[in-house]
Amino acid sequence: MTTNVSYLTAIQEEIRAVEERIRAQAEGYHPDIGAALELLLSSGGKRLRPTVTLLVGHMLDAPVDRLITLASAIELLHTATLVHDDLIDGSLLRRGNPTLNSQWSPGATVLTGDFLFSCAAKLAAETDSLPAIKLFAQTLTTIVNGEITQLFSSRSRINREGYFKRIYAKTASLLETSAKSAVLISPEPDDNTVEEMRQFGYDIGMAFQITDDILDFISDEKALGKPVGSDVHQGIITLPTLIYSEIAPDDPDLRNLLDEDCPINDGQVSRLVKAIRESAAIDLAFEQAAQFVQRGLVNLRKQPESPERQSLEELAEFIVQRKT
Amino acid sequence: MTTNVSYLTAIQEEIRAVEERIRAQAEGYHPDIGAALELLLSSGGKRLRPTVTLLVGHMLDAPVDRLITLASAIELLHTATLVHDDLIDGSLLRRGNPTLNSQWSPGATVLTGDFLFSCAAKLAAETDSLPAIKLFAQTLTTIVNGEITQLFSSRSRINREGYFKRIYAKTASLLETSAKSAVLISPEPDDNTVEEMRQFGYDIGMAFQITDDILDFISDEKALGKPVGSDVHQGIITLPTLIYSEIAPDDPDLRNLLDEDCPINDGQVSRLVKAIRESAAIDLAFEQAAQFVQRGLVNLRKQPESPERQSLEELAEFIVQRKT
Repeated sequence: MTTNVSYLTAIQEEIRAVEERIRAQAEGYHPDIGAALELLLSSGGKRLRPTVTLLVGHMLDAPVDRLITLASAIELLHTATLVHDDLIDGSLLRRGNPTLNSQWSPGATVLTGDFLFSCAAKLAAETDSLPAIKLFAQTLTTIVNGEITQLFSSRSRINREGYFKRIYAKTASLLETSAKSAVLISPEPDDNTVEEMRQFGYDIGMAFQITDDILDFISDEKALGKPVGSDVHQGIITLPTLIYSEIAPDDPDLRNLLDEDCPINDGQVSRLVKAIRESAAIDLAFEQAAQFVQRGLVNLRKQPESPERQSLEELAEFIVQRKT
Repeated sequence: MTTNVSYLTAIQEEIRAVEERIRAQAEGYHPDIGAALELLLSSGGKRLRPTVTLLVGHMLDAPVDRLITLASAIELLHTATLVHDDLIDGSLLRRGNPTLNSQWSPGATVLTGDFLFSCAAKLAAETDSLPAIKLFAQTLTTIVNGEITQLFSSRSRINREGYFKRIYAKTASLLETSAKSAVLISPEPDDNTVEEMRQFGYDIGMAFQITDDILDFISDEKALGKPVGSDVHQGIITLPTLIYSEIAPDDPDLRNLLDEDCPINDGQVSRLVKAIRESAAIDLAFEQAAQFVQRGLVNLRKQPESPERQSLEELAEFIVQRKT
């Protein structure tokens, strides 16, 4: 375990290098871009995606410089999508910190997101790996198509298949790319390893988003950095609600939520969130997340044992155990 | 001249191939994306950027498939920036047609622009040229930084240097890339040709934007597809106004325009637009545009004579002679 702890310390240094690399993107441009990047970096985040990229890459002996470039591109792409997401949703807080759009005009927020996309594209290009660059651009298409689909989708017709598609586009696609692209820049990327690590990234990405959606019901406002039950409040149907609708299809508050023509008030939202939280839906949703993690671990363990593999196993298990 | 005319016909077929390639980007994604792309493609445009890419590429024997891919990436990047621009400016018309933001919600418009950026990045990656991909990403950074700078800039402090920087970011940077990237994907891109064609693209880009800014004063609403004098109306200072401020620094309407704290009414705007239109500023601004074209032609003519070079010469001369 000592090895492993010191290994995680090494990763922390590289995560700081990733943050520095991202910060450096503002150099030579309008000073407000630097201020925006600083705000976005200082508001935290788990750096899950670059951590996956770095660990997978080290496990497969990818060169550290290219890994840091790739991890920076991925984290910056993630940040750019959050900037436009928060603007579109009108979110005022993320991780308990004010969002960019809560402080800036819509125009400035759109352009800052665009600027970050462009820097992410530059960093991706600097990996000098055509397969990684292509995967990166495709992932952005997938993420944005998912957001457009959600914008135009009807909440009454959501089912598990639709939910899984949505969280793939929203979260799992970029975690898939975080893992797969690290293989692509490693010295000998064989097809099996590419596919196994893609599947690992997909699985922990799905588990991560399901857990996020569960925490929206069971966590508290302080830990979430936003009000509890905000998904239901915004009419977003996630796995706990879907499972609850199988357990208690006749709950009148649920039927109200699923009927878009029917307004749902704060009292009804609170009552529904409480009912879901106290139902079996939460445990069943956790089980689904755990199944994804288990499948991910099966694929990961096809790699020889190593401190990096050990760290990735812990990371995968942490995803369903976390409280925030 | 017969050769040349038939050559331009060949280019028209390739321009249609570029449009088809762009249209194909929506396949497999949310149907509203296809509808948006159709709207954007059908609202016309001169296809100046892909024309430059195709002609420069053919002149240097670049492979036609990669050229069409590159030209599609460039036109799509241009389209994506217009989508976000029109949203931010609140423009309801472009080229006489309704803008996307005039018909869609701001959120849908932001995401459609993002989707187009992602497709442009995919197409750029499909050129398989790392230098072209890097140039492409850098150009997007330059364009967006220019827009952010304009958003935060003070109109009272604009001078020629600031104006040239702004139109470089807005227009000349992408025309520079249209020409330069075509060299980069040609079979033997020597450094001199890369630099000469970069300069050619830069020069016709600067001339194009200056002419655009002049036409905003002297054209009519029908030809422009938007009201005459709209730049002055929006408080945007362009070359004719800058030159006029040297000729008639004491014009009270001009002083009002340059003083951001001072509101300027429609009557004052109309009077100022008329004064600038009737002043020597228009001819002097045209002279500046012609100077850029002349320098561009000097660089272009370092290439051996060919039908493609001839077409590029005509295109460069057309840029300052056009009426719309």
